[in-house]
Amino acid sequence: MAQTAELTKKLEETLRRANTTLFKRGRSILVGMEISALQFNALLTIREFGPLTMGDLGKHLFVACSTATDLADRMERASLVERVRDDKDRRTVRLQLLTRGDEALDAVITERQNFVGEVLEDYTDEEYSVLLRGLEILAQRMELK
Amino acid sequence: MAQTAELTKKLEETLRRANTTLFKRGRSILVGMEISALQFNALLTIREFGPLTMGDLGKHLFVACSTATDLADRMERASLVERVRDDKDRRTVRLQLLTRGDEALDAVITERQNFVGEVLEDYTDEEYSVLLRGLEILAQRMELK
Repeated sequence: MAQTAELTKKLEETLRRANTTLFKRGRSILVGMEISALQFNALLTIREFGPLTMGDLGKHLFVACSTATDLADRMERASLVERVRDDKDRRTVRLQLLTRGDEALDAVITERQNFVGEVLEDYTDEEYSVLLRGLEILAQRMELK
Repeated sequence: MAQTAELTKKLEETLRRANTTLFKRGRSILVGMEISALQFNALLTIREFGPLTMGDLGKHLFVACSTATDLADRMERASLVERVRDDKDRRTVRLQLLTRGDEALDAVITERQNFVGEVLEDYTDEEYSVLLRGLEILAQRMELK
């Protein structure tokens, strides 16, 4: 499409605004459980991709290896994850979600869903379909880049 | 609208996926500048609302007062913000953005815009209008809640 810098700016800003509002809602839960935003993203990544090595986690989160190790230490001390040896290659260590990590994710996601639910109460069916379809295409194309 | 729990879940998930991808792109810049995700949100908030007291910043970010003070200390040491006395009430101290804080925000936002720009290259004008309109309504209604 014949996109202009102006349109790109506007889309980035709109996504950022929507996310800031959602982030603030979920954050109250994280603060109560003493979980940082980076830890939350790490937990989400492990839930999505399964038990990950520190190296893989670092790549997913765009953090240095030393940061990923430090993050793993903190999450292990907080009983959010545990280090387990790989069944096939005993030299490989992976981070696996523990119940407390799972519960933290569920609590934050539920809080965010409650908020989205409140917002959607004001939507017509058509407005909703347009929004969802637009976001689905966006999320897919972003992940393919 | 006659919303179901399923629709709410799907919308929250789609927004989260889109944001995770964008967050990862911007994160590479933050890591290089040793700025945490919370510090980035604090800088964004100060840019949007102007010089804030520690109490106001804490409210915006949903963090405890002690966390806001700690955050302010770290950001001040990193030359991202400075504490300044309020002109009208000398007892009030506010956090003000410094050039380095401003530049960090610009660098991350530019990186996110570049990414959004790449994604939008695949869009038709009509797909783009639908997406933007949908997101604008969403961001507005979320902020009003």
